Amino acid sequence: MKVEIITIGDELTSGSSQDTNATFIAHQLHTIGIEVVKITTVGDDTEKIVDALRNVQQKVSYVIVTGGLGPTVDDITAKAAAEALRRKLVLNKLALKAIEERFMKYGREMSPNNVKQAYLPSDSTIVPNPIGTACGFYLARSNTLFFFLPGVPGEMKRMVEESVIPIIKKEQPETTIVSSCVLKVFGKSESYCDQVLSDLIKSEKEVAFAFLPHYPEISLKLTMRGKDGKYIEKKLKALERKIKSKKYLGDVIFGKDEETLEGVVGKLLRSKGATISIAESCTGGLITHRLTNVPGSSDYLERSLVVYSDKAKKELLKVPAGILKRHGAVSKEVAESMAKRVKSLSKTTFGLAVTGIAGPAGGTPEKPVGTVFISFSHKRQVITQKCSFYGDREQMKFMTSQYALDVLRKYLIKN
Amino acid sequence: MKVEIITIGDELTSGSSQDTNATFIAHQLHTIGIEVVKITTVGDDTEKIVDALRNVQQKVSYVIVTGGLGPTVDDITAKAAAEALRRKLVLNKLALKAIEERFMKYGREMSPNNVKQAYLPSDSTIVPNPIGTACGFYLARSNTLFFFLPGVPGEMKRMVEESVIPIIKKEQPETTIVSSCVLKVFGKSESYCDQVLSDLIKSEKEVAFAFLPHYPEISLKLTMRGKDGKYIEKKLKALERKIKSKKYLGDVIFGKDEETLEGVVGKLLRSKGATISIAESCTGGLITHRLTNVPGSSDYLERSLVVYSDKAKKELLKVPAGILKRHGAVSKEVAESMAKRVKSLSKTTFGLAVTGIAGPAGGTPEKPVGTVFISFSHKRQVITQKCSFYGDREQMKFMTSQYALDVLRKYLIKN
Repeated sequence: MKVEIITIGDELTSGSSQDTNATFIAHQLHTIGIEVVKITTVGDDTEKIVDALRNVQQKVSYVIVTGGLGPTVDDITAKAAAEALRRKLVLNKLALKAIEERFMKYGREMSPNNVKQAYLPSDSTIVPNPIGTACGFYLARSNTLFFFLPGVPGEMKRMVEESVIPIIKKEQPETTIVSSCVLKVFGKSESYCDQVLSDLIKSEKEVAFAFLPHYPEISLKLTMRGKDGKYIEKKLKALERKIKSKKYLGDVIFGKDEETLEGVVGKLLRSKGATISIAESCTGGLITHRLTNVPGSSDYLERSLVVYSDKAKKELLKVPAGILKRHGAVSKEVAESMAKRVKSLSKTTFGLAVTGIAGPAGGTPEKPVGTVFISFSHKRQVITQKCSFYGDREQMKFMTSQYALDVLRKYLIKN
Repeated sequence: MKVEIITIGDELTSGSSQDTNATFIAHQLHTIGIEVVKITTVGDDTEKIVDALRNVQQKVSYVIVTGGLGPTVDDITAKAAAEALRRKLVLNKLALKAIEERFMKYGREMSPNNVKQAYLPSDSTIVPNPIGTACGFYLARSNTLFFFLPGVPGEMKRMVEESVIPIIKKEQPETTIVSSCVLKVFGKSESYCDQVLSDLIKSEKEVAFAFLPHYPEISLKLTMRGKDGKYIEKKLKALERKIKSKKYLGDVIFGKDEETLEGVVGKLLRSKGATISIAESCTGGLITHRLTNVPGSSDYLERSLVVYSDKAKKELLKVPAGILKRHGAVSKEVAESMAKRVKSLSKTTFGLAVTGIAGPAGGTPEKPVGTVFISFSHKRQVITQKCSFYGDREQMKFMTSQYALDVLRKYLIKN
């Protein structure tokens, strides 16, 4: 079974609003194994709507249309639907009754514009709107069923969930299960992963591999379709294990599905009963912000110091003035001193520190913008990494926080 | 001049990702007065891409296509473009050179997959990609010019702004000017603004008013179309002044166009030659992260302490143990003490502190999740505000940071 989605609205073709409706509907259909072959968006214009409706491919079973069912002049979808599907526009008594009841319930007076909302193409069946005045409707032409829904996301969602999906599911000849899992990669490029996995991609014909970049991470999505849910689950799990093995991507994969890097790091810290303190310079609080987005992070995050000035580095962390003077604030030595000092001052298991030049100003030929030192302290050990990042200030801050959290994660899974 | 947009990607037709590319391109074209007649989205499937490209209306001058130019197996747009527009797929030497140079610059090794990215339809002209490996390209068929751009939003945006829009603008026969400005509102609802401005919305017929929610801010967009650029500019400026006056929205408007709240606060601090230090509890570094997103923020932000534990509050800020015990960490008294102490310890002009319960755990009947105290210290004065926020942990953190920055802004414009 194939579906097309058509979304209508000048706010979409002018780029004023994001088309969240198409994404929602596509996602709902995807999870029940139905393929969306095309999404078309046009403005509030009769000719364009008629054109979009008539251009639907013959083999498509369902078309879901949203937008243009409101009471105002620019709401012309019902009229365009009648024209495109060669029906008359008639007063639908059930629709009128539903609208009247809605107004009664809210104690508001109905305007003549609202009566307009009850004029629908002949032989339409109503799709009830549980929270708004605009009725939806559906009607068949040849082998295709056309659904028309309002564009207000809250109303459209309820109507898709409560009416459209049940109708489609009932007519679905046999349930195809679509199961996916997402493995999250950081630290290697898309083409690296593609190459490393190339033999698996070729041999695992039942599984669709897709790389979705979510800068600076990559999501590797594995999708399987079929009838046997248990088989699919087993197969995906086995493939996941394989990909996570040393031969393939190993610890380059930091998480799965909805997991975040900060969540994974938090889980590892908690499982070890460890605590951490952080000294941030160029990231300006971002590492701590990310870690504290995780509920319960106060169990392992003791404190964090954003030592933006040299004075703060000296006063709060007792970074020796000599080191700052000799090596500069952005140096291996200062990063190490920060990591060691924040750990000992806070009496935590681990200390993490970053210092760098986020730009756009502040770079030198030896230490250009993007030079960052990440230092990590545990017991008597200090590990420091020098990195060079590209991008604007926010990207640089984010990449630094990402690397720092990943350094921590890799250490925690090994130690 | 009419334009169609085609976006390609299984992540779009399966509803895994929001199609932000189409919205961005449509918005860019709209601001230079060009109409997008249709947006089509299809998956990574040669037949469907070819179909979408061949279904473009004849009267369309430009087609902008995004997605599927990466190095992996599912990147098939160049091949589909060659087929649809009846060209051969050939090695483009300029594209290959650009890719090689990109890898040289980053000191990374090129994989054979990346060479694939240089195979383009014959007679294509390259659209340079300033930040990634995937070249864009364009080619004409009949009276239509087809642009092909990568789907990675950051890369696509730069290429649209730096190459596509300039090419289209040059060929635009007569310019309808569409001019907009966005006034940014925080602290009042959309319906409040709508009501306060209702007489202006009615009387200013040349100007289109639109409220775009960007939680927790509202963007009030004013748009005018016409031929006379100077008249439009004058008119919009006068209207902006009016809306910012006390009679209408006043200081509820914190900024304009691309301005951010943290940027506005930074500008105010800089103009006063003032410095600030921050003590954060429930926001976990977010206020500092936002302030340090602004280039040059090290000029006024001296330091920040994320005192997540009571121990850290006592040790770092010398918040008296008695106050902590008597009133609890989330209290007016602790917030005040934090603001005063962080200011005096850091010797800055201002001290800002927040303490609260971000949830989901930690609430009590007297102090439920979402209870936050924001305290602000200047000279001998301390101003404290108690707030109650709703939402999930991340929303609560963000709302707290937003209120804290807004408290600061309002104080700075008055003092």
